[in-house]
Amino acid sequence: MTTATAGPAARPAETDALRRAMELAATDGLVLGPNPRVGCVLLDPDGVTIAEGYHRGAGTPHAEAVALANARAAVGPDALRGATAVVTLEPCAHTGRTGPCAQALLDAGIVRVVYAQPDPNPVATGGGALLRAAGVDVVAGVLEDEARALNPVWTRAMELGRPVVTWKVATSLDGRTGAADGTSRWITSAASRADAHRLRAACDTVLVGTGTVAADDPSLTVRDAARTGPQPLRAVMGRRDLPPSSRLAVPPHDGTETLHLRTHDPHEALDALWAADRRHVLLEGGATLAAAFWRAGLVDEVVAYVAPVLLGAGPDAVGDLGVTTITGAVRLDVVDVMVVAPSTDHPADQADAGPDETNVRLTLRPRKES
Amino acid sequence: MTTATAGPAARPAETDALRRAMELAATDGLVLGPNPRVGCVLLDPDGVTIAEGYHRGAGTPHAEAVALANARAAVGPDALRGATAVVTLEPCAHTGRTGPCAQALLDAGIVRVVYAQPDPNPVATGGGALLRAAGVDVVAGVLEDEARALNPVWTRAMELGRPVVTWKVATSLDGRTGAADGTSRWITSAASRADAHRLRAACDTVLVGTGTVAADDPSLTVRDAARTGPQPLRAVMGRRDLPPSSRLAVPPHDGTETLHLRTHDPHEALDALWAADRRHVLLEGGATLAAAFWRAGLVDEVVAYVAPVLLGAGPDAVGDLGVTTITGAVRLDVVDVMVVAPSTDHPADQADAGPDETNVRLTLRPRKES
Repeated sequence: MTTATAGPAARPAETDALRRAMELAATDGLVLGPNPRVGCVLLDPDGVTIAEGYHRGAGTPHAEAVALANARAAVGPDALRGATAVVTLEPCAHTGRTGPCAQALLDAGIVRVVYAQPDPNPVATGGGALLRAAGVDVVAGVLEDEARALNPVWTRAMELGRPVVTWKVATSLDGRTGAADGTSRWITSAASRADAHRLRAACDTVLVGTGTVAADDPSLTVRDAARTGPQPLRAVMGRRDLPPSSRLAVPPHDGTETLHLRTHDPHEALDALWAADRRHVLLEGGATLAAAFWRAGLVDEVVAYVAPVLLGAGPDAVGDLGVTTITGAVRLDVVDVMVVAPSTDHPADQADAGPDETNVRLTLRPRKES
Repeated sequence: MTTATAGPAARPAETDALRRAMELAATDGLVLGPNPRVGCVLLDPDGVTIAEGYHRGAGTPHAEAVALANARAAVGPDALRGATAVVTLEPCAHTGRTGPCAQALLDAGIVRVVYAQPDPNPVATGGGALLRAAGVDVVAGVLEDEARALNPVWTRAMELGRPVVTWKVATSLDGRTGAADGTSRWITSAASRADAHRLRAACDTVLVGTGTVAADDPSLTVRDAARTGPQPLRAVMGRRDLPPSSRLAVPPHDGTETLHLRTHDPHEALDALWAADRRHVLLEGGATLAAAFWRAGLVDEVVAYVAPVLLGAGPDAVGDLGVTTITGAVRLDVVDVMVVAPSTDHPADQADAGPDETNVRLTLRPRKES
């Protein structure tokens, strides 16, 4: 990623303040919804911190607004004459649930703004230009890679203009996701399934096809132990009605409805999820749904759990990809390999925990041809 | 493995001598053929070393005979009156290409024998009993586990009374060994294929089915870089004739014939290979051959190379195993997981090296139900 700087370079006190703003942005336990982590530090002309702020998630004030309010509360209305705002993300130029931050900084008397990551959100971008046009000193792109790393999925989603798609698959050594009769409890170990629940909790949407609902009747909820925020949206793709008695047709105790996307087109499904403010879809369906996303070029990441099991027959991991010869294979890059050791810390599941054995988790990304 | 000691315990000098005998047995570069690594140290009554010896492979003298000859050459014919023989393996009681070592030790005037591993070879065992019956002090089972580890495959083969079978399989992430048209060059990386050549070189037999010969026309030779001994025997199982122009029907430059086992019964095939002094078969055939061995319970180890590739269709890793539901799955234990990093040290292959990417190698063993 580029670290282009427009205008003058950041001063040491500003770079230090940016690192502090990143710490604030990375505050644990934030439930961001569709929004990114952002931190802001306000400095007086001598580089001394006046106030700080960070964003706590959709529906709450942006980091800049929090910092401005903190400064006014601590010092008074004129606290910010001649001050500098240091922000991890380009201040927005967009009125959403809150007003545009770029304008708020101008109104407060800020004369200089240093930010790390240009806003990749086409709706919100333009804050830097707005500030520059108003005569503010703007320094952009300082520590940009570090700032992107605060919100890798959000950034990627904004760049793509659609939710990021992670395909989760759990297979036997011979690439089966179930036995000949369709049974699949349990191919992978209790530790792998706990890991997959953490993965699910890190996404805001879990998507399966109507075929999986009919065959497996999944609940798609995150097990409590792995849960850090609200349950991800449960989404089903396909034209068939859900069986009225299926778990996904009955709202769980938190009342979350299942979103039924009545299409076979992954683009349409992602458009609908994007419109519903979804940033990260975990694709958990069967071979047909997975193949549809692969064929549409809409898989961004793969998390594959491989169990030391042979089945010899049963559902495939992925359906027909249109690959007829080896040179047409879909090639991926291995990002991470983790040995999932057997775990005994799931006592509640012991009765139905399945095999306690070593699995392997591979994280991969589709190769971009260079 | 038991470490039962019969008779008196080993003395410190004898244990030291046994460790030295293991070093001798593990001498690099030995070409053992069907025989185990064995080392022998002869001690005088004060525990001082008189002579050493180790076995250099089938058709050469056993370790005890080498040590006895060395002692006589260095000290004279009466060198061994009252001496102790320390050996990594129970002295044999069997006349093969050489005479029985137990008798040779008696004839030399040895009064005490300390050995580590009881001979698991039903044909050769009995040396300890023969010596004891003749009034020799015998101490057995000292450092037995370490001694077994010198010859793990040989030991296992002797216990089984058949060659050990390692199934090698190279698959895509979705469990395919080739694309829909049967092409499979290359699913795995150059580094994985080099690793597989080392595996092949460590076995004394490579076995495929007639179907693989017809489909892939493999040469089954070990690439020179990985070669440490003679080429493994090339064996083909199945009733069909080999195509006369196939690589396996034409002897390679070293003149080794291909052994054609005209049966569909893995037991019969292994019996024939055992009779041909084979200890370690690398099963490299397709799904049908692999399934036949699995169904017969004749796979002892699996080495699976998993490539970051999706195919969506193509030959399966293994054929029908008779598994109909998940509780009938063939469960394995993961012995080792290795990330096979891309390698650039195969310049000779560059033109045809295939993908240069990370693969994962899993080594597994069938689970023994407890």
